[in-house]
Amino acid sequence: MGNQYGKLFRIATWGESHGNGVGVVIDGCPPGVPLSVDEIQQELDRRRPGQSDITTPRKEADTVTILSGVDQGVTLGTPIALNVFNKDARGTSYDEMKKTFRPSHADFTYEAKFGRRMAEGGGRSSARETIGRVAAGAIARKILKHAFNLDIIAYVERVQDISMPPLETPPSLDLVEANAIRCPHPETAERMIERIKAVRAEGDSIGGIIRAHLSNVPPGWGEPVFDRLEADLAKAMLSLPATKGFEVGSGFAGTYLKGSAHNDPFINKDGKIRTTTNNSGGVQGGISNGEEIHFRVAFKPTATIIQKQQTVNREGQPIELMGKGRHDPCVLPRAVPIVEAMAALVLLDHAMRHFAQNVAFKNTEYSSTEL
Amino acid sequence: MGNQYGKLFRIATWGESHGNGVGVVIDGCPPGVPLSVDEIQQELDRRRPGQSDITTPRKEADTVTILSGVDQGVTLGTPIALNVFNKDARGTSYDEMKKTFRPSHADFTYEAKFGRRMAEGGGRSSARETIGRVAAGAIARKILKHAFNLDIIAYVERVQDISMPPLETPPSLDLVEANAIRCPHPETAERMIERIKAVRAEGDSIGGIIRAHLSNVPPGWGEPVFDRLEADLAKAMLSLPATKGFEVGSGFAGTYLKGSAHNDPFINKDGKIRTTTNNSGGVQGGISNGEEIHFRVAFKPTATIIQKQQTVNREGQPIELMGKGRHDPCVLPRAVPIVEAMAALVLLDHAMRHFAQNVAFKNTEYSSTEL
Amino acid sequence: MGNQYGKLFRIATWGESHGNGVGVVIDGCPPGVPLSVDEIQQELDRRRPGQSDITTPRKEADTVTILSGVDQGVTLGTPIALNVFNKDARGTSYDEMKKTFRPSHADFTYEAKFGRRMAEGGGRSSARETIGRVAAGAIARKILKHAFNLDIIAYVERVQDISMPPLETPPSLDLVEANAIRCPHPETAERMIERIKAVRAEGDSIGGIIRAHLSNVPPGWGEPVFDRLEADLAKAMLSLPATKGFEVGSGFAGTYLKGSAHNDPFINKDGKIRTTTNNSGGVQGGISNGEEIHFRVAFKPTATIIQKQQTVNREGQPIELMGKGRHDPCVLPRAVPIVEAMAALVLLDHAMRHFAQNVAFKNTEYSSTEL
Amino acid sequence: MGNQYGKLFRIATWGESHGNGVGVVIDGCPPGVPLSVDEIQQELDRRRPGQSDITTPRKEADTVTILSGVDQGVTLGTPIALNVFNKDARGTSYDEMKKTFRPSHADFTYEAKFGRRMAEGGGRSSARETIGRVAAGAIARKILKHAFNLDIIAYVERVQDISMPPLETPPSLDLVEANAIRCPHPETAERMIERIKAVRAEGDSIGGIIRAHLSNVPPGWGEPVFDRLEADLAKAMLSLPATKGFEVGSGFAGTYLKGSAHNDPFINKDGKIRTTTNNSGGVQGGISNGEEIHFRVAFKPTATIIQKQQTVNREGQPIELMGKGRHDPCVLPRAVPIVEAMAALVLLDHAMRHFAQNVAFKNTEYSSTEL
Repeated sequence: MGNQYGKLFRIATWGESHGNGVGVVIDGCPPGVPLSVDEIQQELDRRRPGQSDITTPRKEADTVTILSGVDQGVTLGTPIALNVFNKDARGTSYDEMKKTFRPSHADFTYEAKFGRRMAEGGGRSSARETIGRVAAGAIARKILKHAFNLDIIAYVERVQDISMPPLETPPSLDLVEANAIRCPHPETAERMIERIKAVRAEGDSIGGIIRAHLSNVPPGWGEPVFDRLEADLAKAMLSLPATKGFEVGSGFAGTYLKGSAHNDPFINKDGKIRTTTNNSGGVQGGISNGEEIHFRVAFKPTATIIQKQQTVNREGQPIELMGKGRHDPCVLPRAVPIVEAMAALVLLDHAMRHFAQNVAFKNTEYSSTEL
Repeated sequence: MGNQYGKLFRIATWGESHGNGVGVVIDGCPPGVPLSVDEIQQELDRRRPGQSDITTPRKEADTVTILSGVDQGVTLGTPIALNVFNKDARGTSYDEMKKTFRPSHADFTYEAKFGRRMAEGGGRSSARETIGRVAAGAIARKILKHAFNLDIIAYVERVQDISMPPLETPPSLDLVEANAIRCPHPETAERMIERIKAVRAEGDSIGGIIRAHLSNVPPGWGEPVFDRLEADLAKAMLSLPATKGFEVGSGFAGTYLKGSAHNDPFINKDGKIRTTTNNSGGVQGGISNGEEIHFRVAFKPTATIIQKQQTVNREGQPIELMGKGRHDPCVLPRAVPIVEAMAALVLLDHAMRHFAQNVAFKNTEYSSTEL
Repeated sequence: MGNQYGKLFRIATWGESHGNGVGVVIDGCPPGVPLSVDEIQQELDRRRPGQSDITTPRKEADTVTILSGVDQGVTLGTPIALNVFNKDARGTSYDEMKKTFRPSHADFTYEAKFGRRMAEGGGRSSARETIGRVAAGAIARKILKHAFNLDIIAYVERVQDISMPPLETPPSLDLVEANAIRCPHPETAERMIERIKAVRAEGDSIGGIIRAHLSNVPPGWGEPVFDRLEADLAKAMLSLPATKGFEVGSGFAGTYLKGSAHNDPFINKDGKIRTTTNNSGGVQGGISNGEEIHFRVAFKPTATIIQKQQTVNREGQPIELMGKGRHDPCVLPRAVPIVEAMAALVLLDHAMRHFAQNVAFKNTEYSSTEL
Repeated sequence: MGNQYGKLFRIATWGESHGNGVGVVIDGCPPGVPLSVDEIQQELDRRRPGQSDITTPRKEADTVTILSGVDQGVTLGTPIALNVFNKDARGTSYDEMKKTFRPSHADFTYEAKFGRRMAEGGGRSSARETIGRVAAGAIARKILKHAFNLDIIAYVERVQDISMPPLETPPSLDLVEANAIRCPHPETAERMIERIKAVRAEGDSIGGIIRAHLSNVPPGWGEPVFDRLEADLAKAMLSLPATKGFEVGSGFAGTYLKGSAHNDPFINKDGKIRTTTNNSGGVQGGISNGEEIHFRVAFKPTATIIQKQQTVNREGQPIELMGKGRHDPCVLPRAVPIVEAMAALVLLDHAMRHFAQNVAFKNTEYSSTEL
């Protein structure tokens, strides 16, 4: 029962990897937003399989349809239903999986929880469910861009131990999209791609780090004490398949510093209160401070490998499993647009919450005689 | 508007550091739970100021009162209101703070958000608000212990660069509580304490890492796709003051491994399906797999330092701020019970959600003729 | 942003009357429930247009498809997406409506709220949106029947001033379904049908009362103080198009009685605590008491009439509107399955909430030494 | 677990009638609202016992304290905790009640649900819990008045069969408060008071109808399809102790009309789109249309009577119960401020929701080239 996200810009996703399709219903989208199906498709194309020679060779167009909530190219304020029908037929190649628990997949836990599972391709636990997130995120992102000129950019910073040099400023989308791994440092990207190909040749897999930058987030977003902005970002990122860690600002590395080195001094910059450093990562006390929000997400190596593995079947009998089929040896390039989509969903929801409490009634004048 | 947590075991906290008090209202607590005020007080005593010579010398008893929901020592199933009245009077020493934004505190962001703030001691942004969490967590923890023999233990693993050696099994509570820093490795603890004292002498501060172990969590808890168990743990931890990062299982370090090394093979151990390694950290696909859940939380150095710092005031004018007053040079020892409390709140809420969907109607027999 | 219902058995509906379709996504459905598309279709057939000669002659099959959450005829515990594609093309006959506010419709208020609306057939405000509710309700109902032998039956008690005599016990579904108006008293049903035909001949419309009986609801369901069972039933019923009133038990008539006549005495009946009368309507203090829950819902006359009406257009200019098209002269017969569906959704959600708090941890033994 | 209300202006109430106290925590209150404790006390004084010779003679001052969320007489935007400590000691006179189920009280259902209850004075099921609602409602009401000049007025329209003549416009607060029964028609009020005294002399009780008018509600509030404005009002009213029915606008009486008589024609009145009649009761399609919202609530006769009644005890044995103690022979006069408070809570929450989705992003310009 955890398939809904957001308090005000609220999405409900559905679908299994090899069922009839996947999709999302969005409730709470502001009315009057121009929206074409192409804008959503564009983001889905960034996550679809088969987009490059380092992703799974599975071919799926992942064509999205808008079923409701949009009229004459403009949102109505009513629920927006977005569907992507599955093309891939139910594979017979997956038969063994029905009886076997693949290591570090969700086969066992889904059975433990629900008493059953749709085995083909992971069913609901497949990363295919993120299609709904990316589709909804495309809309959230557009609204944020127009209302606040807010930019969200993510990229692959490290693959296994191959790391790009740190950037002074967030890279452009073009630079990120310029290569198959979505690393904005071309030389590093090349090495990452080589590594992925080498690992794939071994039938193995690797993970790495995605970094994200959220620019032009106005000060004041975030709802302490529980719904701090970074807390909701952490949840959003850890809700993605294959993620194992999240850090914002100075993160784990910041724990080696003393307070005198870690604190971000305030200055007055052209009439705006800014900080000279940004160890806080754009959030203080759970609320955005107007600086760039930057965070990092750890992705483990893909659980599917084309090697022999020891495991057990549903009856608890030991079994030797040989992975087969088409898979991503490294999820990172396709995860980049998903990270961006989740960030957009978190931010727009927080923007709406902030406005409802703190802006809606701001201009109300209370006479001093009330006191 | 983010001062409520949990879907079914739902808490609402309130209070400012120098207002009349702090507290919590719990809705959804199971009825029939024996509960004495001492059990709650005991946990609060673990987080209260002045408990050792490396925490703030502020003396506050933080005495809790049960105002409702408990009759003759047993919970009624109705809301439980817990209050702690503040003893510390509003300090005049804080006057300067009303006009000044302390670096890396929430002074600026609270004003940016709400247009005002209660300045004394940080107001709502003070870690004093965690009293309500610890009080509620004490109840959640007791229920989990009795219903599942579930154990939650956290401890300080690293202070700045002083790290304890890894443990084979979770430490006992006694071992953790044996020293002021709450590190279960006595020699390391001693060095940590020395470091904290040295840093305090400089008027500076430090951070570090808390590790937590959740034992005997049954398989099946967690609500993918958004409310994965680790996602909710990540949110809970990042909702704590001074946290900058979270990792579960292999975490960031796991991104250096290949899938063949990272995957946790399943085995049959005495009729139970278990894994031989635990890089997953007890969660797979967002659902507990019956292994120990372990995670790490990064705490930054305390923002309050007794040194001169450059900052600006509300008018944006540069100002030199000299920190004073009593503070914790390192938040970690007092954060240990808070981390445990939040883990308890996450787990009990998930237990209730899991039960409602997957257990409540499990024994219902559906005749095959229905199909 | 009010298109989601339920806390644990949670549904999200979408769709406009003349868009691509309507549907629902259900999150939180218990796994292991046998479910065929026919069971859902059967309930949709009870609400579809064109089913009799007193409903709108519009012909729509309203064929439902299950897109996810069900595998091999059994629910998986994952979200269930149900779609009904619209057949009726966008009518050109509705062109005038785009500019005109039909009296007592939602044309004006949707524009006031959202700044725009999909005008054809009422768009989102059309009763066509209840398809998603009926589809989800069919599943809830099945679970309640199997788990508790719980029966939900509604029927038309009064059309305008034509009222059926009171029943001693709830009627059978067969008796209700025996005639087009869904009144279980054949002679009254005949008179109601005649009245509807006469009113339709005038181009006018009428309303009336639907009564519902919920049998075998176990004692203990309902979540005071805000989510009382009757409060949630009231909300569910008033959320239906064309409803203006709700009463439970003795309702408005009970306000004429003295307490001595209104109170329901408790007795011991075969070892069960029961009441001899049921003015309470099966709920006391917001919680079911094991007696039959019965309530009544007032439906206003259909707003669409085939007569000249004075109104204004979007520019505020007075305009004479002549209704046309196919409509229901009386919504009651088609509203019966909708009332039942909403009752089922309320009850299952409350059952799950009750179990989560009060049953899940009931057998936990707490040693008395804890106290 | 139903002790929280509201989505954005969210309250959590707590407390039993004879425990330590009752109270409320409000999350989401806009910052910058001038708020004195007197403004809240004033509303509590309207509901407190012992205020006139037709209410219970129990004397309780119900003095409220603000514990958080307000600084220097202005709201901070952080949670506002309001406490009322109970003065009345736990009565020994209630001993019998612990073992006996009073007819039409919640004694039996609370035990059925929770397995236990606090018996004194009804515990959580006592109307004393409404203190928290009235306190929170006082704040909501103030904000609505200042932001929208929105007026909420309720009054007793009928006591048993004594009914006042209909009013053309809502009465003034002064007129309502001019007599003990809170009926704005002095002659009727006198008869009602006489009736209540006569019924009390018999040891019996009576009920009646409260009518409420909500004026200056802007068009556009309400969140179809589930959270229609009238649906949330219905829920709010049915969540009050002793209520059995709700109707808005033409209500049950409207079911006798034909559509041609029931529809509210639109006109242009001074540039505003208004209706000439108001059978809709100010809501169309679940959204306010700018007309006055008016509704009626049915209250049953008080369950406590000073007469012999047959019932059973916890063991199911028949027992003769003789009511004693101090009680209200008619709850209506004290229910008037409670109805108003709940209406205020519903309206402010809807105002905030409407703003978040439909107003916050309204001025965002989307260039046409986006399409």
